[in-house]
Amino acid sequence: MRKELKPYSLCLNFESGELSFYNKKVEIKLSDLKNFFSNREAVESKLTKGEDPLIYSYYDCVQPPVRGEMSFGVTRILPGKIGDEYNHTRGHYHTDGGAGEIYVGIKGEGFLLLQKRDGSCTSEKLERGRVVYTPTDWNGHRTVNTGKDELVFLTIEQADSGHDYETIKEKGFAKLVVERNGKPVMVNNSRYK
Amino acid sequence: MRKELKPYSLCLNFESGELSFYNKKVEIKLSDLKNFFSNREAVESKLTKGEDPLIYSYYDCVQPPVRGEMSFGVTRILPGKIGDEYNHTRGHYHTDGGAGEIYVGIKGEGFLLLQKRDGSCTSEKLERGRVVYTPTDWNGHRTVNTGKDELVFLTIEQADSGHDYETIKEKGFAKLVVERNGKPVMVNNSRYK
Repeated sequence: MRKELKPYSLCLNFESGELSFYNKKVEIKLSDLKNFFSNREAVESKLTKGEDPLIYSYYDCVQPPVRGEMSFGVTRILPGKIGDEYNHTRGHYHTDGGAGEIYVGIKGEGFLLLQKRDGSCTSEKLERGRVVYTPTDWNGHRTVNTGKDELVFLTIEQADSGHDYETIKEKGFAKLVVERNGKPVMVNNSRYK
Repeated sequence: MRKELKPYSLCLNFESGELSFYNKKVEIKLSDLKNFFSNREAVESKLTKGEDPLIYSYYDCVQPPVRGEMSFGVTRILPGKIGDEYNHTRGHYHTDGGAGEIYVGIKGEGFLLLQKRDGSCTSEKLERGRVVYTPTDWNGHRTVNTGKDELVFLTIEQADSGHDYETIKEKGFAKLVVERNGKPVMVNNSRYK
């Protein structure tokens, strides 16, 4: 018999995005993202100099992966670029039925890239107060910080929605968000398979 | 074949709780809540005087009730009491598998009552920045405004989670939130079946 889950609550600071409680914290550094940036030389150059900056972290309230339960958390992406590509998360495809997800921007500026398994790719802006709905078919998700400050956002997803990072690692995203003349633009990813 | 859903975004004002877009707006007046307050005489007294105040409204972004999709919206409960019972929503049980729900307080003060089908009842505080997790077993939900101002909160739920209002109408909630010496207290509901 599964353990009974109890209701609980915590505080989200609407200014900083800090959570008063979380049961999973993950920090992702450049060395964890070797194959996730298009400019492999820029990555290697930093790492061989001994630079391994933190790119993003997430603080999650994860429930057991059971149909009907929901998980949520806050992601913080530091500002910066690797080559001309803005800092971003690895990205994932959801693997199970419950793939819809809600993103709520808290601070900073960026984009959510959304991709279907057939490679169709679109984006939605992320900024304070912006709520993005991602339907099940658009279940490839990557967030990109294009601003000068941290990009911080809340995500809510179904606890059994699963995360496939491997496909993204192998195939990449169809689009990249890069700086051109000081502004973010979306370009095709020549490495996309 | 079902219609393909597209990603979309909108703005949530973190101060007022206003949404820049919604596809369902519902206003609930006292006359819609006749059997949902314990003091039936207080309800009738107001209605016979021609008073039929707005008690709460909700602004929802509803997705089709399909496994995996998510719906969300903002609820606004006006301050006030009927007899000594604070203004509240009808309340619902979720009827389908995906019954987990997230509540995020935006402004005001109140409580979320949570009830199991066996009548077990508990509560979590609702206030600005408070995030409440409701697991599937605790799928009876009612929100209560115990403050002097509007209680405004965001809810995120699975689009196929279904709402059963009839059981609440017939049986009520096991607990009521009433004013005693100027403060909210939870008491047993003598009408609860």
